[in-house]
Amino acid sequence: MSEVRLPFTRDEYAGRLNRVRAQMAKRGLDCLIVTDPSNMAWLTGYDGWSFYTHQAVVITPQEDPIWWGRGIDARGARRTVYMDHENIAGYPDDLVQSVTEHPHQHLADLLTAKRVKGSIGVELDNYYYSAAAHHHLTTNLNDASFHDATGLVNWERAVKSEQELVYMRAAARIVENMHLKILELVEPGLRKNDLVAEIYGAGIRGTEEHGGDYPSIVPLLPTGPDASAPHLTWDDRTFEKGAGTFFEIAGCVRRYHAPLCRTVFLGDPPREMLEAEKALVEGLGEGLEAARAGNRAGDVAIALFKVLARYGVEKEGRCGYAIGLSYPPDWGERTISFRPTDNTILEPGMTFHFMPGLWMEDWGLELTESILIVADGPAETLTNYPRQLFVKN
Amino acid sequence: MSEVRLPFTRDEYAGRLNRVRAQMAKRGLDCLIVTDPSNMAWLTGYDGWSFYTHQAVVITPQEDPIWWGRGIDARGARRTVYMDHENIAGYPDDLVQSVTEHPHQHLADLLTAKRVKGSIGVELDNYYYSAAAHHHLTTNLNDASFHDATGLVNWERAVKSEQELVYMRAAARIVENMHLKILELVEPGLRKNDLVAEIYGAGIRGTEEHGGDYPSIVPLLPTGPDASAPHLTWDDRTFEKGAGTFFEIAGCVRRYHAPLCRTVFLGDPPREMLEAEKALVEGLGEGLEAARAGNRAGDVAIALFKVLARYGVEKEGRCGYAIGLSYPPDWGERTISFRPTDNTILEPGMTFHFMPGLWMEDWGLELTESILIVADGPAETLTNYPRQLFVKN
Repeated sequence: MSEVRLPFTRDEYAGRLNRVRAQMAKRGLDCLIVTDPSNMAWLTGYDGWSFYTHQAVVITPQEDPIWWGRGIDARGARRTVYMDHENIAGYPDDLVQSVTEHPHQHLADLLTAKRVKGSIGVELDNYYYSAAAHHHLTTNLNDASFHDATGLVNWERAVKSEQELVYMRAAARIVENMHLKILELVEPGLRKNDLVAEIYGAGIRGTEEHGGDYPSIVPLLPTGPDASAPHLTWDDRTFEKGAGTFFEIAGCVRRYHAPLCRTVFLGDPPREMLEAEKALVEGLGEGLEAARAGNRAGDVAIALFKVLARYGVEKEGRCGYAIGLSYPPDWGERTISFRPTDNTILEPGMTFHFMPGLWMEDWGLELTESILIVADGPAETLTNYPRQLFVKN
Repeated sequence: MSEVRLPFTRDEYAGRLNRVRAQMAKRGLDCLIVTDPSNMAWLTGYDGWSFYTHQAVVITPQEDPIWWGRGIDARGARRTVYMDHENIAGYPDDLVQSVTEHPHQHLADLLTAKRVKGSIGVELDNYYYSAAAHHHLTTNLNDASFHDATGLVNWERAVKSEQELVYMRAAARIVENMHLKILELVEPGLRKNDLVAEIYGAGIRGTEEHGGDYPSIVPLLPTGPDASAPHLTWDDRTFEKGAGTFFEIAGCVRRYHAPLCRTVFLGDPPREMLEAEKALVEGLGEGLEAARAGNRAGDVAIALFKVLARYGVEKEGRCGYAIGLSYPPDWGERTISFRPTDNTILEPGMTFHFMPGLWMEDWGLELTESILIVADGPAETLTNYPRQLFVKN
């Protein structure tokens, strides 16, 4: 056990477990099957790229959590989780991507052996809990009823601890450096992949104090008309004069993220883009003012949209989401959204990616901030980076 | 449409669609809902980091495929798929991570409007088809019966085309360069994350002809006792003398992968590791001999295990899997496995990651090859890189 290098104290893990158990009690759950890798890590410390095979953490009201997964990954669990080795259970490799048997039959047997029954919560819509996993688990556990516990753990993660903020602030330093590198290097004739190599370099090197971890989303950096779409990655064509590129990237430290997006235009940006920049900068400012403890999450979106409307920009949908610890494919926590209908009351310690993207017919503009809700006053930005459209001539 | 830069000819996409339709007809399916991002890309060209929200490609016997996903990602589809824009359908952003409505209600409505009914195949155990997605789709489509089509498309991908092999060979050149960079730089005192930055640099820079894409798994490079577990990533501690590290990485070009793993020992490796190296090298050689068209996939595993047993190394489980186009979280195709029970007959054009890992009590050794089954003779390795344990003193 001595070799396990946990990112948090055991007390912090115990506190998290207590909060999840309180929530389970409230919902009358005798057991919770956690399959979202970010929830697994937050509850136990587990860290490894093994979520491409079925795995879970089992939470019951009394016992320590049980890590369950592929046999060879149980070895990784032994090196990363705080629980005793007897709380780590591996299934045979023959079950991996087998067409005749499913790992969740094995999980059902394990739960039966542990006498788990009654009301079982499962993360029906979290990542990596497939329809087949649900089928095999439910049909092999007769003494149980199943209830949707999607997001149960995620919601408990909303307010960050001091140590979590240490990692997020370190990630913020890193993403600032990544953007500086972009601004230094981007120019006509440079292949896009060559710039991405530098972005990765700055992100993974990190700082002297904190080496960088992999962000849960790869760099998104569409150019010109491609920037009308938010989630394109890159290719090996060169940057050219006369187009804007937005760079949606994140620093990451011990799985904690600080995303930040800026747009760079090579040449002279068209007037409409400069107008949009003004609208976004003002809108972000108003949004930050509204992002106060006691306000609703939706108020942030309304404050932003009001400014945009004044500039004649129609915008709807989400313009922000909770962030923190994450594994691919998303760096969001999938709980609170900045959209007018979200009534969640903001609390100190909550962290968000406030990200108003404008994806127009043949161009796009993104200026975003990673923010922290504080006890008094407007939200604090985790990064300190000029909030503007950068122009390189 | 002219701006869409497809990685394959339209004829190639048409051929893929025909093969999938033939398979659907064989199984009596009137419709196939494809949610695995790699299957979506292989069938339509779609490329974007949007698989963190629900999306799918709908295949019917007559019409062109329909891309369905989040509204803002429909813009990405317009820029990457070969179909007409009328075959691209977006759902409102309010459905994203909503607690009151689910995107698959929208998909059910779309299918109803298109008069899709009868037998519908869904990828029950592919990635990103959640238990909730299945629930909402099935309960909102009354005129349909649902059938498990997990892997249906994946199996059609097993034999690679010439153009697919062009990308995989390019990826193989890249992964060779990544390993050369490792060997050049790894030394006691170097922070692990700083080496990872260089690995990413070499991988994404790629070659003059082909810029690198992001591999579907991040570099795995556990050291010393951590190498007893296969899927740990990295931290910011330094390399030290007296321990081995395996580097499981891949080159990637237009989403096609060439994984390659080598182990580097700093200092003098213990005798047991040198013995294991001998066993693995000989075992890989025997495995390649067995990896011939007409043989079973299981024969490759048996040939390897036989050699290992002769050296007193007990090994079971999988020692290889089909590879090609992929998106996170896995670079495998999740069809054919090199394990004794797999009776799939090997065919020319099939590609695999042949990867016998030895994860011992307090160390690990991996030497692997990406291979191509050819018409005559043993498998061809895609990379040309010394098959050995590297020792740096």
